[in-house]
Amino acid sequence: MKIDGTHYRTIWPAADGRSVAIIDQTRLPHRFETLSLASVADAARAIKIMQVRGAPLIGATAAYGVWFGMRDDPSDANLDAVIALLAQTRPTAINLRWALDEMDRALRPLSPSARAEAAFAKAGAICDDDVEANRRIGEYGAAAIRDHAARKGRGRVNILTHCNAGWLATVDRGTALSPIYQAHDAGVPVHVWVDETRPRNQGAALTAYELGAHGVPHMIIADNAGGHLMQTGAVDLCIVGADRVTRDGDAANKIGTYLKALAARDNGIPFYVAIPYSTIDWTIGDGRDIPIEERDAAEVLRMTGRTAAGEVITVDIAAPGSPAANPAFDVTPARLITGFMTDRGVCAASAGGLVSLYPGGADEKAA
Amino acid sequence: MKIDGTHYRTIWPAADGRSVAIIDQTRLPHRFETLSLASVADAARAIKIMQVRGAPLIGATAAYGVWFGMRDDPSDANLDAVIALLAQTRPTAINLRWALDEMDRALRPLSPSARAEAAFAKAGAICDDDVEANRRIGEYGAAAIRDHAARKGRGRVNILTHCNAGWLATVDRGTALSPIYQAHDAGVPVHVWVDETRPRNQGAALTAYELGAHGVPHMIIADNAGGHLMQTGAVDLCIVGADRVTRDGDAANKIGTYLKALAARDNGIPFYVAIPYSTIDWTIGDGRDIPIEERDAAEVLRMTGRTAAGEVITVDIAAPGSPAANPAFDVTPARLITGFMTDRGVCAASAGGLVSLYPGGADEKAA
Repeated sequence: MKIDGTHYRTIWPAADGRSVAIIDQTRLPHRFETLSLASVADAARAIKIMQVRGAPLIGATAAYGVWFGMRDDPSDANLDAVIALLAQTRPTAINLRWALDEMDRALRPLSPSARAEAAFAKAGAICDDDVEANRRIGEYGAAAIRDHAARKGRGRVNILTHCNAGWLATVDRGTALSPIYQAHDAGVPVHVWVDETRPRNQGAALTAYELGAHGVPHMIIADNAGGHLMQTGAVDLCIVGADRVTRDGDAANKIGTYLKALAARDNGIPFYVAIPYSTIDWTIGDGRDIPIEERDAAEVLRMTGRTAAGEVITVDIAAPGSPAANPAFDVTPARLITGFMTDRGVCAASAGGLVSLYPGGADEKAA
Repeated sequence: MKIDGTHYRTIWPAADGRSVAIIDQTRLPHRFETLSLASVADAARAIKIMQVRGAPLIGATAAYGVWFGMRDDPSDANLDAVIALLAQTRPTAINLRWALDEMDRALRPLSPSARAEAAFAKAGAICDDDVEANRRIGEYGAAAIRDHAARKGRGRVNILTHCNAGWLATVDRGTALSPIYQAHDAGVPVHVWVDETRPRNQGAALTAYELGAHGVPHMIIADNAGGHLMQTGAVDLCIVGADRVTRDGDAANKIGTYLKALAARDNGIPFYVAIPYSTIDWTIGDGRDIPIEERDAAEVLRMTGRTAAGEVITVDIAAPGSPAANPAFDVTPARLITGFMTDRGVCAASAGGLVSLYPGGADEKAA
């Protein structure tokens, strides 16, 4: 996507041939800064402290992490060690595990001397595949949005989204936002309700930033507001991303997604989850088996923002001494999901729906 | 309630005989400061900018506002003008209208020369009645909590609450928190999940402050987290307050309440709304007819907190240039409410339930 007229992906090989550049997402929306990653430790840290975040981008970053590891020591033992280290950076998004499995499958059969170069190429292919998958999600999803616009007849289509499943969450284009960008670019009058998405505010900070940069009309709302907007007819459909979808169609996504799915159901509003193939975990049926990351209480107790002088600072917002709990994801059961917008089309949120698009299940390639 | 060993109400007549003191709730939890109100304009402003907030406390403050008005000019015309001015400060909480009606009924029949003194006495009586109503809500509500504790058998009772319906929202004791304080004081092992309650953070700022001061175990959570906690068995019951309950049992409360009620229903968790009589609007049946206040977008786009140096500042947290919408309340339909905890007992959320406790409806006195 374009920032001030320049096209960016969220991760790209640097000109030095030894590092990759990322956009430091902990600095947005206050500063647009890029960072250089050049080691396994850099990649692991960037994922852990959320300089990169979003399930597909986490996977892509881990893939480049394997490249750094293979450059240092391309042995089988180090391949195991690097994958193990990167795999434990964050527990919920399955794309991380998927990308590491892809790297393992590509590199394991090769002689160690060939692994570094192959790792670089494979990481690049994972990135390119992600962009292509997201382009297709956008195509299928935009068609669904266009159908809703046609059924509505007049006025804008109001879409509610939660967290950031935009280009910043992927290598480019986004998952949930890809259909919105394509619909907007095709002249469908879309308007997006952007859930702020506490505690890390990915909605107000990242989704609003993206939509603003692309010129898509939007409004930020407190996470509490979506139910009321649905009750009063201000939401036509919901589209969110996911960090892991089970083979039976349950979807783990940013904490709070489940509440919006309940409200959508209560008000007869379609609730879509936009995912590439790499987000499906074919090994799990029941969403309750998905590990849910518990993050630092400080994310709830503090907030970062810009002062009037333009300084970016973090302040304590809660009653001093009060503790906080911070589960980072919740699971929306398949029964509340209208459908998945995928790189192969839109399907029902069920084992049958997913298999109809991906008959090979876990053995099938993404694109 | 006690702050550092001293008992406070949230509003009280000052020693000068001409003003009332309030706790400035826009400064909590960072500073405990009291303010003096001495005119109708002071009272209206305190309600409008939320130096006082919470439906019962808004009513009590407006009652003292009428006293100030009668002191200046006790004519019928000014009684009308003062009531009209105070009535429009905030639209959703019916307690404001109720308190002004009570003042009108008490003062209108009197000769103008008797009105100021009578207004002072009546405002004080409204405050005392509120404290007594809340004590009774606490008694009935604590019995319900004790029943849940007994049914659970072992371990603490986990109660989720939204916004602040504690002593800071009332003259003293609180509505939703009154049962929790009484249960805690009686030795029932309660633990409270405190919804942060964006955008104004009354949960993290006020409820956590109150519970901490009283020694009630609690944890602050992002508003997004409650659904996940309910899905995973970490919530035994929910208790919230309300700003207006219709005669058919729909309840307007702080934005986001509806989402928690949906999650409670989806997980078979009891969802109680704690209210005094003055919160019931007998003139409305359908909650969709309750006016919902739209507040300043800046509340969503900015956040106030303490710096490491202890300075209290406000920072911009969202993408620059992005607009925000800020509806302040939503309506939870009666079908999602397990029962009302009132000053006369616990009843079903229905016309029949409310009439069983208040057979006289609108003609009945609170306590």
